[in-house]
Amino acid sequence: MRFTSEQRLDGGVLEREFTLGEIPGILWTPGSASAPAPLILVGHPGGLRRMYPRLAARARHSVAEGFAAATIELPGGGDRPRLAAAEEARADLLRALAAGEPVSGEIVDRLVLPLVEQAVPEWRAALDALLALPEIGGPVGFSGGVISIGVRLAVVEPRIAAALLFAGSFVPAGVFEEARQVTIPLQVLLQWDDEGNDRQAALDLFDAFGSSEKTLHANMGGYTGVPHFEWEAGDRFFARHLK
Amino acid sequence: MRFTSEQRLDGGVLEREFTLGEIPGILWTPGSASAPAPLILVGHPGGLRRMYPRLAARARHSVAEGFAAATIELPGGGDRPRLAAAEEARADLLRALAAGEPVSGEIVDRLVLPLVEQAVPEWRAALDALLALPEIGGPVGFSGGVISIGVRLAVVEPRIAAALLFAGSFVPAGVFEEARQVTIPLQVLLQWDDEGNDRQAALDLFDAFGSSEKTLHANMGGYTGVPHFEWEAGDRFFARHLK
Repeated sequence: MRFTSEQRLDGGVLEREFTLGEIPGILWTPGSASAPAPLILVGHPGGLRRMYPRLAARARHSVAEGFAAATIELPGGGDRPRLAAAEEARADLLRALAAGEPVSGEIVDRLVLPLVEQAVPEWRAALDALLALPEIGGPVGFSGGVISIGVRLAVVEPRIAAALLFAGSFVPAGVFEEARQVTIPLQVLLQWDDEGNDRQAALDLFDAFGSSEKTLHANMGGYTGVPHFEWEAGDRFFARHLK
Repeated sequence: MRFTSEQRLDGGVLEREFTLGEIPGILWTPGSASAPAPLILVGHPGGLRRMYPRLAARARHSVAEGFAAATIELPGGGDRPRLAAAEEARADLLRALAAGEPVSGEIVDRLVLPLVEQAVPEWRAALDALLALPEIGGPVGFSGGVISIGVRLAVVEPRIAAALLFAGSFVPAGVFEEARQVTIPLQVLLQWDDEGNDRQAALDLFDAFGSSEKTLHANMGGYTGVPHFEWEAGDRFFARHLK
């Protein structure tokens, strides 16, 4: 892990870009020296540069609440090499949507599973590197999408103690099975009127989670319309479970 | 409105019992003199004495956050005269449930509508009396059940600026129509695994509300299992809309 740049944001938050091998990432920490902060991994759909304003806003909110926050680019996202299988599946997906055809489970599997397979070990490696920093302590939360990545991390990575997941479309059937194995506390965000989202699938996935503490927060509006008060609710959820 | 008793609770909260004509009620206010507090009407399924521990706990939490809180007994609840029509419907309901038969919409109408018809003017009269007290200001929130009472109040009572509703079973078909007329901000609590609750009906009712800001919070557990962190979330919802 190599820091490549650093800047101070409003409120004294320290933002540092880093690379982990070929993978770019960003770390946000409290500006002043303090006890090691619990870490929130900030998930996203890929494309760090495009997502930066929203990610940085969420991260700064979390840092103000006493967390560290970090994210890395997804496989195939930003300037990283394309994932050939997923690119092909995306083309098939767009063709199906343009033709008004249903999106088959086979396309969804090809779109999402290679991404999960490659991304999850990368996030775990990032966790190794981040937790080695003196300013970061455990436990760790995962916040955001891709929900299939969040589910897999919640199952396989014991250092993740709580997850705030963004319900999204195109969830492979196998992920519903994995969801039953999740036992950590969950808060699941669902945009109720997201026309690109399958509401019933999201409710079914929420139902499938094995966690005894799981909360669904459904709000109006589309993908980018998550109300700001959910950031605060998310930080309160993490404060209950990470502090 | 006549105060009949008063006591100091932990934290200095002033709890006063009152009667409004024949209707008993309870008012909780900050113990020390302060600016007029926004009011939260605390709904419940009837039976103030039985519900007291939970109502008082919720009210004290709200008072600590700077609100006043008040409740009144429902028609037919506690020591108030039975509602003959509703009692008869309740007997029919229990017969249907015991026989494993579906509960007809006709029974639900007879169970709920007379209660709503009588309760709503009583809550509005209570509002008149409470808002005349110097320690209480507007605006007003409604928090709790019976959800059909909350919906009617949200439609007909302009002083109610936000509502936290508890999704419950046995909602008359007409209430779904009323829900479309609701435009105030809503937070709706749903106990996901409440065996006595019709989850799909609750989701349909949430969908029906006309409000542009509406949030659904679904949690695990049955009717009495609403997690304590929802009290805090409720007070934050009211703080956004009543302060």
